[in-house]
Amino acid sequence: MLKVEKLKVNYKTLEEFKKFREYGIQELSMLEDLEANIIEDDSASPFYGIYFGDKLVARMSLYRVEKQFDRYFEPAQDYLELWKLEVISDYKNKGYGTALVEYAKSYGLPIKTNPRVNSQEFWNKMEFSTVSYDMERDLGENPLVWYPDGVKEKTH
Amino acid sequence: MLKVEKLKVNYKTLEEFKKFREYGIQELSMLEDLEANIIEDDSASPFYGIYFGDKLVARMSLYRVEKQFDRYFEPAQDYLELWKLEVISDYKNKGYGTALVEYAKSYGLPIKTNPRVNSQEFWNKMEFSTVSYDMERDLGENPLVWYPDGVKEKTH
Repeated sequence: MLKVEKLKVNYKTLEEFKKFREYGIQELSMLEDLEANIIEDDSASPFYGIYFGDKLVARMSLYRVEKQFDRYFEPAQDYLELWKLEVISDYKNKGYGTALVEYAKSYGLPIKTNPRVNSQEFWNKMEFSTVSYDMERDLGENPLVWYPDGVKEKTH
Repeated sequence: MLKVEKLKVNYKTLEEFKKFREYGIQELSMLEDLEANIIEDDSASPFYGIYFGDKLVARMSLYRVEKQFDRYFEPAQDYLELWKLEVISDYKNKGYGTALVEYAKSYGLPIKTNPRVNSQEFWNKMEFSTVSYDMERDLGENPLVWYPDGVKEKTH
């Protein structure tokens, strides 16, 4: 059983994040805020991860979007936006990605993600489905969603 | 001088889109709408492109976001969202990408894009800059923006 942990913002975690391909402005912003003492060491972060020993080998970011901003689900409700799901190369195909997604599902809220290309098979296996493309809403995204019981796609 | 053309939705264009790496739900949706006669042949599309002979070699998507949804610029105003900027492999480094971005700038509106990784150098050359990361707004994006004269970053 893989243990999913909520990650705290500290120099060690931010250093581990550099091993992930999707390192970007989000991580740089956390580093700057930490260095400038705008946030404290060990502050809460939107990241969840799995360790192998003391090494971070998988992570994702989760954010709860409030009902008033929901443009994907019916009935409209709070949902989780999931991004930066990534397992580092040597640890792929061992269930880490699945464990993170199952963790996200455990909240019982609908989930939306905008996956990287070439990950369709994984998301199919996780029972995520495509939505009807809406340009004003989706722009360049390829949204995939997961519906808990009783939730369906918002009709345009 | 490279000629940028607004692309129309028809079977020929949709077939050419398959050569681009970022082919996704947006293109599939246009194809389905065309096949189901929901849209007419040669309908307007959000895509702009450059042809070499009769071959589409570069493209981008542009959408004008209305002022009321602007969360990036000061003063708040209509801006252009730019996505799927792509030049097919054999035609890279010949100015096609630059010509498309210059075309977008010619509207005189601020521009926002969420670039693919490893394109930072190109966007720097195009005078796009990073914004201060705002998790609720940016989630997994790494937004880059271009400011016309008199426009600056929205302060949080």
